[in-house]
Amino acid sequence: MATPVKVYGPPVSTAVSRVLACLLEKDVEFQLFSVNIAKGEQKKADFLKIQPFGQVPAFQDESITLFESRAICRYLCDKYIDKGNKELYGTNPLSKASIDQWVEAEGQSFNPPSSALVFQLAFAPRMKIKQDPGLIRQNEQKLAKVLDVYDKRLQESQFLGGDEFTLADLSHLPNTQYLVNATDRANLFGSRKNVERWWDEISSRDSWKKVVDMQKTTA
Amino acid sequence: MATPVKVYGPPVSTAVSRVLACLLEKDVEFQLFSVNIAKGEQKKADFLKIQPFGQVPAFQDESITLFESRAICRYLCDKYIDKGNKELYGTNPLSKASIDQWVEAEGQSFNPPSSALVFQLAFAPRMKIKQDPGLIRQNEQKLAKVLDVYDKRLQESQFLGGDEFTLADLSHLPNTQYLVNATDRANLFGSRKNVERWWDEISSRDSWKKVVDMQKTTA
Ligand SMILES: N[C@@H](CCC(=O)N[C@@H](CS)C(=O)NCC(=O)O)C(=O)O
Ligand SMILES: N[C@@H](CCC(=O)N[C@@H](CS)C(=O)NCC(=O)O)C(=O)O
Repeated sequence: MATPVKVYGPPVSTAVSRVLACLLEKDVEFQLFSVNIAKGEQKKADFLKIQPFGQVPAFQDESITLFESRAICRYLCDKYIDKGNKELYGTNPLSKASIDQWVEAEGQSFNPPSSALVFQLAFAPRMKIKQDPGLIRQNEQKLAKVLDVYDKRLQESQFLGGDEFTLADLSHLPNTQYLVNATDRANLFGSRKNVERWWDEISSRDSWKKVVDMQKTTA
Repeated sequence: MATPVKVYGPPVSTAVSRVLACLLEKDVEFQLFSVNIAKGEQKKADFLKIQPFGQVPAFQDESITLFESRAICRYLCDKYIDKGNKELYGTNPLSKASIDQWVEAEGQSFNPPSSALVFQLAFAPRMKIKQDPGLIRQNEQKLAKVLDVYDKRLQESQFLGGDEFTLADLSHLPNTQYLVNATDRANLFGSRKNVERWWDEISSRDSWKKVVDMQKTTA
C-alpha cells in the first residue's frame, strides 16, 4: 500500500482546503498535520524549510515537497491520473488548456478581491481587527465585475472549464464557501442566475461537503 | 505549413511579453495583432468576445481561444512539446511540479507587488498620474521579502525550477525588466547576490532580448 501524502495546515485555511478538496476528488489517501497559524507556527524555522514563504499549505509525497495550493492540485492530478475523478484536469490538451485558463482566472482575478472580503467580513470581526470600509467597497466592486464575466460564461457552459466539474471550479470553492455562508454578501452569488446554479452544484459535491465538515471539527 | 498562432496585445504589456517570450523559446511562429490600450480597445465588444475580462493578451491557435498569460504559456509547452526549448515545462512529473510551484509563486507572490511598483514607478509618471508613496513603500517591502526567499532558493539551485531555465524563470522576465531598467529600484535585485546572478543569466537569453527589441519598436 502506498504511503499517504502529507498536508500541513488547518482546513479552515482557504489554500489548505483547496488541496483537501482535490485529494478527496482524486481519492488519494492523506495525512493532515496541524499548523497553528494563531501561534505563528508557519513562520518557525522548521516549517520554513518546507514552505519558504511561511504560509500554509505545505505538501509532501514520497521525495517531493511542494507549496502553492494550485501547483499541488496540478501535481495531484498528473501523478494520480488513474485515481478518483479522472476528468478533474481534463483528458486532452484542449480541455486542459481551458481548465488552466479558469484556474488562472481564479488565482489572478477572483481570489484577490474574494480573499480580501473573506478576511474583512468573516475573519477580522472574530479576530477583533477593525474593518476597512473603503477596502470592502473596492473589493466588492472588483468581485462583482469578475462574477459578471462568470455569469456569462456559465450561461454558455455548465462549468467554467466546460461540461465537467474540474479543477477550475474546485479552485473557487474555498473563498466562495466563506462569502456565501460567513458574510452578508451571499447575494453577490445569489443575484446572478448562472453563478447561483453553478454554486449550488459544485458546493454539494461529497468531496466539498467533507472538507466543510473538517473545517467544523478541526480548528 | 502550420498556420501561425495569433497573439492580441502590445509587447509593452507585461502579460503579453510573457507569452511572446514563451513563443520565441518554443520556436512557434506567431502573428501579433495590435490592441491600443490607451484608446481602450481592450474593452470593445469585439475584443471582449475573445478576452471577457477586457485585458491583453488574447490568443488563438486553430480552434482554441485562450486568455491568461500563464495558461497560454502552459498550453504552448504542452501543444508544441517537440518544438524549440524542450525543457521549458519539465520532462517528468517531478520537474513539472517544481516549475508549476514557482510559476504560481510568481503569479501569487511576486507579481502583485512587482506590477504595482512597475505601474507606480515607471508608468504613472509617463501617464502624468500622481504616485502613491504609501503604496510604493508597502509593495517595496513585500517584494523585498519575496526576493529574500528567491535569493535563498537561487543559492541552492541555478534556476527557480531546478538546473534548467524554465517557465518558472521566464514568467519573471516582464516585471523584472521594467523594475531593473525603468525604475530607480534595480537594487532590489542587484543587492541580492544569487538573484543578481540569475537575472543576468535569464535576461540575456536571445528570446528575451528579442522581446525587449519588440517593446522598443512597437508602441
Ligand atoms: N498562494 C498560496 C497562498 C497561501 C496563503 O495565503 N496561506 C494563508 C492561509 S489561506 C496563510 O498561510 N496565512 C498565514 C500567514 O501568511 O502567515 C497558496 O495558494 O498556497
Ligand atoms: N492575469 C492576466 C493579466 C492581464 C493584464 O493585467 N493585462 C493588462 C496589461 S499587462 C491590461 O490588459 N491592462 C489594461 C486593462 O486592464 O484595461 C494575464 O496574465 O494575462
